[in-house]
Amino acid sequence: MKFRVLAQRGKARAGVLETERGEIETPIFMPVGTAGTVKGMTVGELAAPPLDARIILGNTYHLYLRPGLDVIGAHGGLHRLIGWDRPILTDSGGFQVFSQGDSAKIDDDGVTFRSHIDGSSHRITPERSIEIQATLGSDIAMAFDECPPGGAPREIVLRAMARTTAWARRCLDGPLASGQVLFGILQGGADVGLRRRHLDELGPMPFAGFAMGGFSVGEPIADMYAALDSFADELPADKPRYLMGVGTPEDITRAVAAGVDMFDCVMPTRNARNGQLFTSEGKLVISHARHRMATGPVDPECPCETCTRYSRAYLRHLFFAKEILYSRLATLHNLTHYMRLVRRLRAELLDSQGFK
Amino acid sequence: MKFRVLAQRGKARAGVLETERGEIETPIFMPVGTAGTVKGMTVGELAAPPLDARIILGNTYHLYLRPGLDVIGAHGGLHRLIGWDRPILTDSGGFQVFSQGDSAKIDDDGVTFRSHIDGSSHRITPERSIEIQATLGSDIAMAFDECPPGGAPREIVLRAMARTTAWARRCLDGPLASGQVLFGILQGGADVGLRRRHLDELGPMPFAGFAMGGFSVGEPIADMYAALDSFADELPADKPRYLMGVGTPEDITRAVAAGVDMFDCVMPTRNARNGQLFTSEGKLVISHARHRMATGPVDPECPCETCTRYSRAYLRHLFFAKEILYSRLATLHNLTHYMRLVRRLRAELLDSQGFK
Repeated sequence: MKFRVLAQRGKARAGVLETERGEIETPIFMPVGTAGTVKGMTVGELAAPPLDARIILGNTYHLYLRPGLDVIGAHGGLHRLIGWDRPILTDSGGFQVFSQGDSAKIDDDGVTFRSHIDGSSHRITPERSIEIQATLGSDIAMAFDECPPGGAPREIVLRAMARTTAWARRCLDGPLASGQVLFGILQGGADVGLRRRHLDELGPMPFAGFAMGGFSVGEPIADMYAALDSFADELPADKPRYLMGVGTPEDITRAVAAGVDMFDCVMPTRNARNGQLFTSEGKLVISHARHRMATGPVDPECPCETCTRYSRAYLRHLFFAKEILYSRLATLHNLTHYMRLVRRLRAELLDSQGFK
Repeated sequence: MKFRVLAQRGKARAGVLETERGEIETPIFMPVGTAGTVKGMTVGELAAPPLDARIILGNTYHLYLRPGLDVIGAHGGLHRLIGWDRPILTDSGGFQVFSQGDSAKIDDDGVTFRSHIDGSSHRITPERSIEIQATLGSDIAMAFDECPPGGAPREIVLRAMARTTAWARRCLDGPLASGQVLFGILQGGADVGLRRRHLDELGPMPFAGFAMGGFSVGEPIADMYAALDSFADELPADKPRYLMGVGTPEDITRAVAAGVDMFDCVMPTRNARNGQLFTSEGKLVISHARHRMATGPVDPECPCETCTRYSRAYLRHLFFAKEILYSRLATLHNLTHYMRLVRRLRAELLDSQGFK
């Protein structure tokens, strides 16, 4: 995997990440395919315009539990199971495990947790996380980290940083799949001093890219913005910078300006299913009575099938009728909004530097 | 609307129904779009190969209640609301109202019922049914009929026939939408004598086609087959014959042999969502443990995206994870199975008569 920065304006960068499964033009948004599917979408739709997603995310925790590594292995990996031949990034499983709350018991060696599906007990260590991700065969694997909640006491954040550093070394020792690369994850909460300290520890390690974890986990948004503005640009300039689990279109715009290259978030897909649509004029709540007779599109500036073919009134009807088609069309639209956003940010950067 | 029989073998016919919105090649299966969407599918998918649906069905009862006639009218009709420019057939609303059970009160003039959505009271008469269907703007409207349950006592069937005959005359008086035609509905249960009597009453009326209602409503399957074998061919030969709400692939094959041209049924779409897939080797229950590691397709003979791109194991995973994509892929496959069935029956008929 090779990463090149093509244009820079202030701290913002436009680049390209070359992988064996195709080029990823940055800044990039990665649709989240938790359980082996970006909810509501086919891989064909994800790859075709106007989405043209270059990389999607899979959740190690969910895939490990269901369908299970034997099933995925029998298919020769996640790509072939789900029919997607472009790059996939897998998280380490840690964040999802910790999200189970009290049922997850963490120690210096790893974490023991119960399945949310059947209550069975499982253990993931850094070595096991890498082993699982190698079986999934993702293009980008993530180091196993501990992510404390937003506003956690300093000693908790410090302990999570220490564990994450120790685990990062162990992850780097694990055998990856052919062509797979590993990204490290930086913790330290919203405290720039702690972030720098953790970067001092992980920065020299031979990761192919660096992620910032532990943002958008309950801290005030202003704290995240302040930390990103001060810190994101300090990550190694020759490697991709990935802000995990963030965020709104505004968050992404702000983070790109701060020097971030990669994003993922369930917001466009989850909000779509819940009735919240992103438009060029702000958020639209499809259940509102004012859309009942609205024969116009969700967003007249959007080129997606939802906006070119259907009215707000029809979408509102499908939403109330709990029709599958609502979730499909709403997801297609919100993802299109996000993909257009990062492509526009990229085009503006290239344009400002004389690229066409 | 013009109907021509192109080939006949025994009682079975291959024909073409010419409408202002395109040709419908018979025998035809009409996917059911109850609430303004064939559940899980886009209109683009329905129109594209391998589905290439030529006509879909909309349910007057559901659409009248939600989104409501004002919303549909504001869009200029059902076609434009749902983005489908091929023909649509609407039922009369009667069958769906009677399916509400005791809350529907029927009299000689019409039926009063409560909405399954909000409990509000509504009344549909033959005139009102035609008025609603004219607002929907379907290409084929159905006369308002009374459909007694399978095995109903003879006097109930006789009263339903009498009402249906009286209502048929009233429906024929109603103003249709531009280009819209009206089909009559024959009742009489599984009793061929009663069926003939009802055909004597309705057959001379100027309907553009005739449907057989009151089959597959709880009677033994052998009774339906016997009635179809004796009776279907007695319907006017120069008009399309439509068997409402039927059925399995076997039912359709049998009914085509008996002389039926048109079919609709929720079976392919509903069974798909419930985990039952139709294949060239019979029914497949996707939840079965034997599919857990199955890397092969649902049906190796099927050209649909589900079968060419995904494994049974992946579909089983999506089914258990309650993923939207499962319903999409399963529906696409089952509908493909049905559309291929009627196209094959048609091709065999044309082929046997020297057509290519």
